[in-house]
Amino acid sequence: MTAETPDTALVIFTPSGKRGRFAMGTPVLTAARQLGVDLDSVCGGRGICSKCQVSPGIGEFPKHGVTVSATALSEWNSVEQRYKDKRGMLDGRRLGCQAKVMGDVVIDVPPESQLHRQVVRKAASARVVEMDPATRLYYVEVAEPDMHEPSGDLERLSDALREQWQIEGIVAGLSVLRKLQPVLRKGKWAVTVALFKDHQNGPARVLDIWPGLYEGDLCGLAIDLGSTTIAAHLCDLRDGRVLASGGVMNPQIRFGEDLMSRVSYAMMNPGGDVEMTEAVRLALNALAQSVAGEAGIEPGAIMETVLVCNPVMHHLFLGIDPVELGQAPFALATSSSLSLAASEVGLTALNPAARFYTLPCIAGHVGADAAAVALSEAPQTSEDLVLIVDVGTNAELLLGNKTRVLACSSPTGPAFEGAQISSGQRAAPGAIEHLEIDPITKEPRFRVIGSDLWSDDPGFAAATESTGITGICGSGIIEAIAEMRLNGIVDGAGLIGGPDQTGTTRCEPEGRTHVYLIHDGTAQNGPRITVTQGDIRAIQLAKAALYAGARLLMDEFGTETVDRVVLAGAFGAHISAKHAMILGMIPDCPLDKVTSAGNAAGTGARLALCNIASRAGIEAQVKQIHKVETAIEPRFQEHFVNASAIPHATDAFPNLSKLVTIPVLAHNTQGSEGGGRRRGRGR
Amino acid sequence: MTAETPDTALVIFTPSGKRGRFAMGTPVLTAARQLGVDLDSVCGGRGICSKCQVSPGIGEFPKHGVTVSATALSEWNSVEQRYKDKRGMLDGRRLGCQAKVMGDVVIDVPPESQLHRQVVRKAASARVVEMDPATRLYYVEVAEPDMHEPSGDLERLSDALREQWQIEGIVAGLSVLRKLQPVLRKGKWAVTVALFKDHQNGPARVLDIWPGLYEGDLCGLAIDLGSTTIAAHLCDLRDGRVLASGGVMNPQIRFGEDLMSRVSYAMMNPGGDVEMTEAVRLALNALAQSVAGEAGIEPGAIMETVLVCNPVMHHLFLGIDPVELGQAPFALATSSSLSLAASEVGLTALNPAARFYTLPCIAGHVGADAAAVALSEAPQTSEDLVLIVDVGTNAELLLGNKTRVLACSSPTGPAFEGAQISSGQRAAPGAIEHLEIDPITKEPRFRVIGSDLWSDDPGFAAATESTGITGICGSGIIEAIAEMRLNGIVDGAGLIGGPDQTGTTRCEPEGRTHVYLIHDGTAQNGPRITVTQGDIRAIQLAKAALYAGARLLMDEFGTETVDRVVLAGAFGAHISAKHAMILGMIPDCPLDKVTSAGNAAGTGARLALCNIASRAGIEAQVKQIHKVETAIEPRFQEHFVNASAIPHATDAFPNLSKLVTIPVLAHNTQGSEGGGRRRGRGR
Repeated sequence: MTAETPDTALVIFTPSGKRGRFAMGTPVLTAARQLGVDLDSVCGGRGICSKCQVSPGIGEFPKHGVTVSATALSEWNSVEQRYKDKRGMLDGRRLGCQAKVMGDVVIDVPPESQLHRQVVRKAASARVVEMDPATRLYYVEVAEPDMHEPSGDLERLSDALREQWQIEGIVAGLSVLRKLQPVLRKGKWAVTVALFKDHQNGPARVLDIWPGLYEGDLCGLAIDLGSTTIAAHLCDLRDGRVLASGGVMNPQIRFGEDLMSRVSYAMMNPGGDVEMTEAVRLALNALAQSVAGEAGIEPGAIMETVLVCNPVMHHLFLGIDPVELGQAPFALATSSSLSLAASEVGLTALNPAARFYTLPCIAGHVGADAAAVALSEAPQTSEDLVLIVDVGTNAELLLGNKTRVLACSSPTGPAFEGAQISSGQRAAPGAIEHLEIDPITKEPRFRVIGSDLWSDDPGFAAATESTGITGICGSGIIEAIAEMRLNGIVDGAGLIGGPDQTGTTRCEPEGRTHVYLIHDGTAQNGPRITVTQGDIRAIQLAKAALYAGARLLMDEFGTETVDRVVLAGAFGAHISAKHAMILGMIPDCPLDKVTSAGNAAGTGARLALCNIASRAGIEAQVKQIHKVETAIEPRFQEHFVNASAIPHATDAFPNLSKLVTIPVLAHNTQGSEGGGRRRGRGR
Repeated sequence: MTAETPDTALVIFTPSGKRGRFAMGTPVLTAARQLGVDLDSVCGGRGICSKCQVSPGIGEFPKHGVTVSATALSEWNSVEQRYKDKRGMLDGRRLGCQAKVMGDVVIDVPPESQLHRQVVRKAASARVVEMDPATRLYYVEVAEPDMHEPSGDLERLSDALREQWQIEGIVAGLSVLRKLQPVLRKGKWAVTVALFKDHQNGPARVLDIWPGLYEGDLCGLAIDLGSTTIAAHLCDLRDGRVLASGGVMNPQIRFGEDLMSRVSYAMMNPGGDVEMTEAVRLALNALAQSVAGEAGIEPGAIMETVLVCNPVMHHLFLGIDPVELGQAPFALATSSSLSLAASEVGLTALNPAARFYTLPCIAGHVGADAAAVALSEAPQTSEDLVLIVDVGTNAELLLGNKTRVLACSSPTGPAFEGAQISSGQRAAPGAIEHLEIDPITKEPRFRVIGSDLWSDDPGFAAATESTGITGICGSGIIEAIAEMRLNGIVDGAGLIGGPDQTGTTRCEPEGRTHVYLIHDGTAQNGPRITVTQGDIRAIQLAKAALYAGARLLMDEFGTETVDRVVLAGAFGAHISAKHAMILGMIPDCPLDKVTSAGNAAGTGARLALCNIASRAGIEAQVKQIHKVETAIEPRFQEHFVNASAIPHATDAFPNLSKLVTIPVLAHNTQGSEGGGRRRGRGR
């Protein structure tokens, strides 16, 4: 970059707008690097990786005040022709390392040539995250060994990385040392290395090495390890794309459905924690292999994994007895993030040198999954007061805005995931996920996962023939109970009325209570799907716990209302905001301010995988989040008891009361919901 | 420390002589710390570890210019009395953390209270090394968890180490995280941690944790992994004492006796390198258990291991195929030191968090064992020119002084270790280790390992009844051949004469050559021990290689003579300097300047184990050592051929010729050794 002289030319890069004058003959890649323009290159300008493709413009650029002649860049050369013949290249594209500046020029860097391309763009927010993963590829030419100046192959590789990439000091584990020598010789001393350098201060670590220019896969795995289900997203570490996603049931369910029963299992059975650790690690390895297979990549191409989970799963996965998490003061063995070799935590299906990162835990009841939700939803940047609810077997709640953020967890139990529900099942094809009840006939209609048709639409039977109608999932039971309440089938205390009170024979006696029949598939050898009194009690307990957690945070924050609610979690993505509010799961709030963030914990894990600054960010942020402990807070019990009715008094729900009118059941002599509020399961 | 006022007293510590004024009431330990006096403490001044014992003096100290009154320290207190009752304490001793300064005082710090006490004192040199191991114990009191300020147990341990020991930031592996919570609770929040912090920049690593004050063992293992034998020294990491030593044969011998045959085995047999890696790791684990058993400690008390070995063993132990070391340019996979978890290299018999360190290699033929010899013998500090010869299956040689140091290796083969010798065996009870031949009768007399008697002493038969006379070890065969040469039984070319030439019927025909009978044990069902022509050829090859290596270094250094010779290695410790010189193994040198350094490689490993600065030192020093490659150096071949005679012309050995007169054999018509010098095995 020099002052304007006849020997220099003006180079303008778009979209960045960065510009400078360069001597004639300067390669475009060199100009980009000197200006700090984000132009990728794996081979370091040797014309073999094609990552530095650019689109030069020709003609008038009034906005930039230049006219670009057809000879502004050096002629198309044989390196470019060879690459185009071999791999193909869009017309008009040039290789930045080959094309030299010969006159004033405007050069566009297309998104796929940007090293820090944008990724994980959140639809619901303006936030954008750029690719800046810990693991990157570098092509290097290594000096051959010289017996008169004996140095190891690793030391000469280190020298090459210093000279060619300005990377100071590397380390390599034994899996790399084992293959280093044959790979260097096979590549005739030109190799590609995968280097890992995260937000911590350690030296760059060689994870793998390939002869010549490696053009294969480079992936990371983001894992959301829930108590009930495990979800994994396989991401391309170069562009952040999700190549495949998959999920399995957590095999620890056989040791206990909820977290506390697993803690009990560990306490009652010597070696029980080890059994559970082995089970979940086995499942994660199988899941990694399965998503890799689905994406058509070798599991060895998985260089990193980021795990988020609640504290009990965190300890059980790491092989730490979770017994302390089962009793006050709920002390974690460690609350910090962990960066380890994946093999140390038994993840052996990945690359042998793969790394493992888990986000920090917020508290003994608020885990790395809540930290991941905080990373994804960034409540600390919100102008308005946002309540984020991650619904799972253990619900985790965040409440805050720019001033401060509070967190707590609430033991909702597995009812929202379809467990402990008589016809419950997890969200899978055949499960009822949406339900409406006709106000006049009290007849239900519903939709099942796997079809867009309602059960009273023509063709529904044919459309659901392959899946059947197998049960009711979490979002289905929420809608069913809310609709039953709306239509006078269940009262404010949660009691299902008989046929004479409700006006429908679908309300059948069962023991001393009633059930509401949704679907009778027995004629087709299918199940009889009902909502029982027990189902309603289970959901009441779960939603009361959730609501009580939210109220506790609001008390602590000193607010009676929230500006918006974000529902997170796989369940949160499918829930109907209206029905959730009718049921009293969440505080009153304008319905259009209730949004779904999908699997925010999984998104947070992906962010941590794709951008190392986000790891440093969440580690710092977690220290700022104020934790509220529900288990010992008397007000939590109070809120819990008060929240078991369906729904709460309408005066506490001004937004809800605009939407629906809750009928008063014939047998409800109190004429208001007040009585029901005090009838819930007490302490 | 303040200016002289009536409220302060003068405190003088011996032997350091450090002095300062302190406020009345200052604990002696505090004064010591402020003055930088080397006074140990594990408990940090809580009066429970007793490491800070001191000996205050009373009376006149004219040398220091003070008079110490009987009340110069606070009175003996109940903490001291309790400790003395429970564990015993020498009279006159005080606990530095309890005794407070009340007047001018002279305080002696006995050696056992010095943290950096001296250790590994080399008898042969003035060098002294002080204890400064990577792993130390720290007693800390950790804050209890508080559910309103949730932080992990590890984070509170980290806080405690920062506050109580000024240790900033720690990491802990999963083996520690697994036991952290129960140990903290068992110790009622007081624990002892073993912290590892070496010469590198990483954070301190918790290796283990115990409830309360840990008073058990804390050990390290120094391993010298030779091609033929493996030696291990178990050291106390607190005072450097060797608690036990042991050795086993290298089980890789079954894959090839010397290094190159093992490299061939790896080349010819797919998976052969893996087989050899597993064999040697198995042997090291067994050896660790055996020395721990001998010392009566748990193998889990071994926190660190330092390994030295030649480059081929280095690669085979680490699991790296050594094939590149078998061919020019003899490139190492890595020449740097390695610091790893011991479990990564399969050393699972130690503490699960134990660390592994191997010294850097000097070149593809000059390994970490040679680096360890350099660390132990420090040629770079020598005023006179020293040749250090580490005799093994592969001999490694260092030549140098303060100006510079050269290194090479020489493929001597296993003959010096008793292999490839017809009656050879390794140095073990029953092996002939010393031998003399009567100049008149030509009858031999000898000593075997396990007895101090000569074979013609009365009582020899009884003394050796338990061991028998089983064979001849390396030092024995050297002496036997040198004595045969001195007594005209073998000529300068290495040929054994017949009975008519030598005048003894002990020279018996065997095929087309002769053997010399040392001992016939067949009547007692023992072996018949002879020196054969083949034995002499094997020793000639070995000693020629050794000598040629030394000559090559001398050429490179530009010298015709060396000032002194150090023989290292287990073999070097037992060799007779005179006989070695008669044989022509080492360059001519005054006999009193030929010393033995014992197992210098093992000593170097112990130094690296006990003092982390020595690790940094040898890593820097290795980069300064100039390597000479023997394998491709024409002069090496030349020296080798010229060195195969026994001995060389006396004019090249002025010191030797003063000692002995080499007889001229009847059949040696040339009358000088010149002929023999050209008769050795050529290229």
